[in-house]
Amino acid sequence: MSQQVLILPGDGIGPEIVVEAQKVLDVVNSKFNLGLVCDEALVGGAAYDEFGSPLPESTLAKAQAADAILLGAVGGPKWDNLEDRELRPEKGLLGLRSGLELFGNLRPAILYPQLAAASSLKPEVVSGLDILIVRELTGGIYFGQPRGIRTLENGEREGFNTYVYSESEIRRIARVAFESARKRNKKLCSVDKANVLEVTVLWREVLEQMAPEYPDVELSHMYVDNAAMQLVRAPKQFDVMVTGNMFGDILSDAAAMLTGSIGMLPSASLDKNNKGMYEPCHGSAPDIAGQGIANPLATILSAAMMLRYSLNHAQAADAIEAAVSDVLDQGLRTADIYSEGTHKVSTQHMGEAVVAAL
Amino acid sequence: MSQQVLILPGDGIGPEIVVEAQKVLDVVNSKFNLGLVCDEALVGGAAYDEFGSPLPESTLAKAQAADAILLGAVGGPKWDNLEDRELRPEKGLLGLRSGLELFGNLRPAILYPQLAAASSLKPEVVSGLDILIVRELTGGIYFGQPRGIRTLENGEREGFNTYVYSESEIRRIARVAFESARKRNKKLCSVDKANVLEVTVLWREVLEQMAPEYPDVELSHMYVDNAAMQLVRAPKQFDVMVTGNMFGDILSDAAAMLTGSIGMLPSASLDKNNKGMYEPCHGSAPDIAGQGIANPLATILSAAMMLRYSLNHAQAADAIEAAVSDVLDQGLRTADIYSEGTHKVSTQHMGEAVVAAL
Ligand SMILES: CC(C)[C@H](C(=O)O)[C@@H](O)C(=O)O
Ligand SMILES: CC(C)[C@H](C(=O)O)[C@@H](O)C(=O)O
Repeated sequence: MSQQVLILPGDGIGPEIVVEAQKVLDVVNSKFNLGLVCDEALVGGAAYDEFGSPLPESTLAKAQAADAILLGAVGGPKWDNLEDRELRPEKGLLGLRSGLELFGNLRPAILYPQLAAASSLKPEVVSGLDILIVRELTGGIYFGQPRGIRTLENGEREGFNTYVYSESEIRRIARVAFESARKRNKKLCSVDKANVLEVTVLWREVLEQMAPEYPDVELSHMYVDNAAMQLVRAPKQFDVMVTGNMFGDILSDAAAMLTGSIGMLPSASLDKNNKGMYEPCHGSAPDIAGQGIANPLATILSAAMMLRYSLNHAQAADAIEAAVSDVLDQGLRTADIYSEGTHKVSTQHMGEAVVAAL
Repeated sequence: MSQQVLILPGDGIGPEIVVEAQKVLDVVNSKFNLGLVCDEALVGGAAYDEFGSPLPESTLAKAQAADAILLGAVGGPKWDNLEDRELRPEKGLLGLRSGLELFGNLRPAILYPQLAAASSLKPEVVSGLDILIVRELTGGIYFGQPRGIRTLENGEREGFNTYVYSESEIRRIARVAFESARKRNKKLCSVDKANVLEVTVLWREVLEQMAPEYPDVELSHMYVDNAAMQLVRAPKQFDVMVTGNMFGDILSDAAAMLTGSIGMLPSASLDKNNKGMYEPCHGSAPDIAGQGIANPLATILSAAMMLRYSLNHAQAADAIEAAVSDVLDQGLRTADIYSEGTHKVSTQHMGEAVVAAL
C-alpha cells in the first residue's frame, strides 16, 4: 500500500529547498515505515525551458496520479518578458491549482516564539500569533470569464476581468473554513466587500446560511479594508479567516509578514478529497537562488503538512515539526531569520540539522 | 470673489468632528480674509432618514456648484439592513465620487512624531513614515458593469462584478501620481496584479508608456500581495504609491494603520480641475458617536488639505497644520491617541485648542 508523492522543485531557490525537504521525507519514510514513493517533474520556468510549457501534460498527468504534491516555487525575471502570457511560470502554478481542483488553500501565519524578534511589529502585538487563512483558490477573479484587453469604439483599449462566485463554490470553501475553525479556537471571520461588490453580498449570504450548521463556531464578517487594518493593529483577534482568491492572496501575504519570518510558513492547497499540493508561502526568490542561503524550513514544514492533511501520517508530521522547533532551539538560523547571538547556517546545513534532530 | 464650501456632516461621529473643523475654517477665513462662504447639506444615512435617499438631488446639486466639499463620514448599523442596497449610506458617498468625477484620491499616511508610540509597529520601522497613496476612485471594480447576482441554469445563484479600466482612466490617475511624486521624493510605485489580471497588465503598460515624460521620477511596479507585505515589513521604502480603486481601498487602510493614529489622517478626492471633496480616512465610528470623544484632527487636517489643493490658500493651510502640531506638542490627546503622560481631552476641547493655537 504505497503512496505516491510528486516533487516539483520549480524555479529560483525551489530546487535547493526542495532537496532538503526530500531528505527529511526520506528519513521519516523509513523511520515510520510510511511506504512513500517519490517522483519528480518540472513546472514553471524550468518546464518552459525544457518543454516550452510551464505545465507540460506529463507533469499534470503525474500530479493527477499522485496522492500528494510538494512544490518549491515558480517564477523569475528570466521569464517575465515572455510575450505570450500563457507561457509564464505563474500559469503553471495556476494550471495545477485549477487542473487538480485544489480550491481550499490553507495558509497559517504562526509566530515561532524563537523568532519573535524578527517581526516588524511590537512583541506584545504579535507574540503567540496563530492565524489560519483559508483562501478560495480555483475561482473568483483569478479564473473568471470574460477577461482580456479589447479595443473600444473610440480606439482606446480597455482591460477587464470578472470577479465571480457561485453558491456552490462559496459553500465548499466555507465548509473547509468552518471545519478548520471547529478544530481550532472556533472563531471564523469571513472577509468580503459586501458594501460595494455584489459577488461578495452573495458570499456573505451563503456564509450566514451555513452558520446554523456550526453552532459551536462564532461567525463574524469584516470588510476587506478593515481586515487589512485589523491585521496590522491587533492580529491576535483572529483565529480562522476565510475569503476569496484575490483578497486571500493579499491578506495571507500581509498576515505572513506579521511574523517577520515568511521563510518559516508552509501552505496547503486541497481538493474535495483532501488530496493536496503543498508549498512554502514565500516565492522563488531569484535574487538569492543558487547561493545556498535560502531557508528550507517552510518547505520542510510543508512536507509535514502534506503528511498530516493528505497522507494521514500525523505522527510523522509531528516528528518533523518537533525537529524544526528543535533546530530553532539550538539557535540555528538561515540568513533571513538570523539575529545577533544565533548561529547562521546554510540551506543544506539547516536541512541536515532537521534530519539529525529526527 | 468668494469661494463656496459645502459641508456634509454625514452620520455617526461626522457631525461632531465637522463642527470643530468648521470652527477652525471660520477662524482662518476671517484671519486670512479668504472669502469662504459655507453651506451645509445632508448625505448618507442622515439624508436617507430625512429625504429617503442617501444622496438627495439637492445635495448633489449643491456639491456640483461648490468649489470644495468637506465631508465627515457616512454609514452606521441603523442602515445596514436596508433591503434596497441602493439606499444605503455608502451609496451616497459613491454617488458623490462618481457624480463629481472625483477620480483622484490622495491618502497620506504620515506618522506624527508626537504619536510614534501609538503604532503597533516597532519605532525604527515607522519613525518618519510619510507615504502618499494615490487611489483611482471612480472606476475599476467599484463601478464596472455588468454586475449583480443571477440565477444559473442549474438553479444556483452566482454573484459577479467587473474589474475594468480604459487607457484614459489609467492615464489620468497616473498623471496625478507622477505629478505628486515629482513634488515629493520622486519615487512612484505602481501596484497591480499583472501576473494574473489582464486589466492590470494594461495598467502597467500605460504607466510604462508615460514614464519617459517624467524622467525625474523613478517608477517601479509591485504586485499587490507583495505591496501588502512590504507595507508591513519596511514601509519607509515607499514615497508615492498608485493603484486602482479596490487595491487602493485595502492598501490605504493598511498604510493608515501603520501609523496607529488613523484619527489623524485626512484625504482628498479630486476631479480634473482640482475641485475636491475632503474627508478623514477613518469612518463614522457609530459605536462612539454622540459621546464627544471622537478625534476631530483628521477632519481639521482635511480642511487644511482643502485650502491647499482646491482653494489655493496654502498659507491658511500651513497655519492649520502648524496649529495641529502645536496642540500635539502641548500634550493634548483625544482618547484614540491617548497615552500615559499626556492630557486626555474631548472632541470639542481639541477643536477649541486648535482654534486657540491659531
Ligand atoms: C504567483 C501568483 C500567481 C500566486 C497567486 O497570486 O496566487 C502567488 O502570489 C500566491 O499567492 O501563491
Ligand atoms: C465606505 C466605502 C464604500 C468606502 C470605499 O470602499 O471606498 C470606504 O471604505 C473608503 O475607503 O472610503
